[in-house]
Amino acid sequence: MTRISDPKGHDFVPEAERIAVFDNDGTLWVEKPLYTQLAFALDRLRDLLPQHPEWADNPMVTAALNADMASLTRDGNKGLLELMVATHTGMTPEVFQKEVMAWLATAEHPRFKVKYTDLVYQPMLELMAYLRANGFTTYIVSGGGIDFLRPWVGQVYGISPAQVIGSSIQTRFEIVEGQPELIRQPHLSFFDEGAGKPEGINQHIG
Amino acid sequence: MTRISDPKGHDFVPEAERIAVFDNDGTLWVEKPLYTQLAFALDRLRDLLPQHPEWADNPMVTAALNADMASLTRDGNKGLLELMVATHTGMTPEVFQKEVMAWLATAEHPRFKVKYTDLVYQPMLELMAYLRANGFTTYIVSGGGIDFLRPWVGQVYGISPAQVIGSSIQTRFEIVEGQPELIRQPHLSFFDEGAGKPEGINQHIG
Repeated sequence: MTRISDPKGHDFVPEAERIAVFDNDGTLWVEKPLYTQLAFALDRLRDLLPQHPEWADNPMVTAALNADMASLTRDGNKGLLELMVATHTGMTPEVFQKEVMAWLATAEHPRFKVKYTDLVYQPMLELMAYLRANGFTTYIVSGGGIDFLRPWVGQVYGISPAQVIGSSIQTRFEIVEGQPELIRQPHLSFFDEGAGKPEGINQHIG
Repeated sequence: MTRISDPKGHDFVPEAERIAVFDNDGTLWVEKPLYTQLAFALDRLRDLLPQHPEWADNPMVTAALNADMASLTRDGNKGLLELMVATHTGMTPEVFQKEVMAWLATAEHPRFKVKYTDLVYQPMLELMAYLRANGFTTYIVSGGGIDFLRPWVGQVYGISPAQVIGSSIQTRFEIVEGQPELIRQPHLSFFDEGAGKPEGINQHIG
């Protein structure tokens, strides 16, 4: 930090270029035994099941309800994507974010019996605060969904919703009862994993 | 501004939520007689022509070289997209941005005979500065290309590269001579026009 902050030094980085990106799952908060977003999706699937009798014969749904990860991931990400589409789409981003917040307010980690947002890593919070105090902008770059992260990362990590880079599904602009709305569509827009991470960083930050 | 800045008032907006978005072409800078990015693409097409004998029989190229906009736009955006792919892809974002800067440094507007970056609207610069002085974050939301805008909007508008929302093409992560690189691909990723604008704002800012 001393070297990059010295305007006369060889390694000086102007504040506008001080950017730090953080993975989320397993870096800023817990990722075991399941990605937290997957735990959310499974709970939501159970909640929505009574409204979807057509799901009864769906092997993905059966696998998910039995937490049978081997079957769910047999075709790579296909089963997981199907699960995400069933539980994460058809509503506005605002409504979806409210569902996320309602779940996080009550869901408990199966081992530690506390809220997931209490299972964040204190040294990482301190590192992010230190970087920000030294002129860095901190971003999350997560394979998780942008709208799953946005509603709570401000309070928990001090990162604004606009500084979240993540996977996203397509939205469609519609007029609903005279109001302009975006509706989350059953199609993946961007998968922010592997090579997607540098692509997402370039797309979002430049 | 008085109303949204009064923490006790009914219309108070906290600074984190003070966001202002601006169209670029025809709003912040000139858009006649051609979108500036289209003028860039046409100049670049002329420059690249000697390296592409296969373009000789391409009606899109002929139309572009003759500035025959009627032919170029006969199939909606198809001709324009083909022109963009021919002139805007195959290199890293850094190399592309350098091409943009080199062009902007010398290109002149056909009527006013000055650089395009001198044809920005002073009242809009003042409005953006006023908003920023009052806690707003200012974004550009343009149908133009994100990487066409990013290298110069900081200096010209005071808007950081990360606060540009625009059309984009896909990039692919590759190892080139041992170095990790993103290469601009001949495929549109996002068209930030019409309904794409609220979708892009949601995707980028939330």
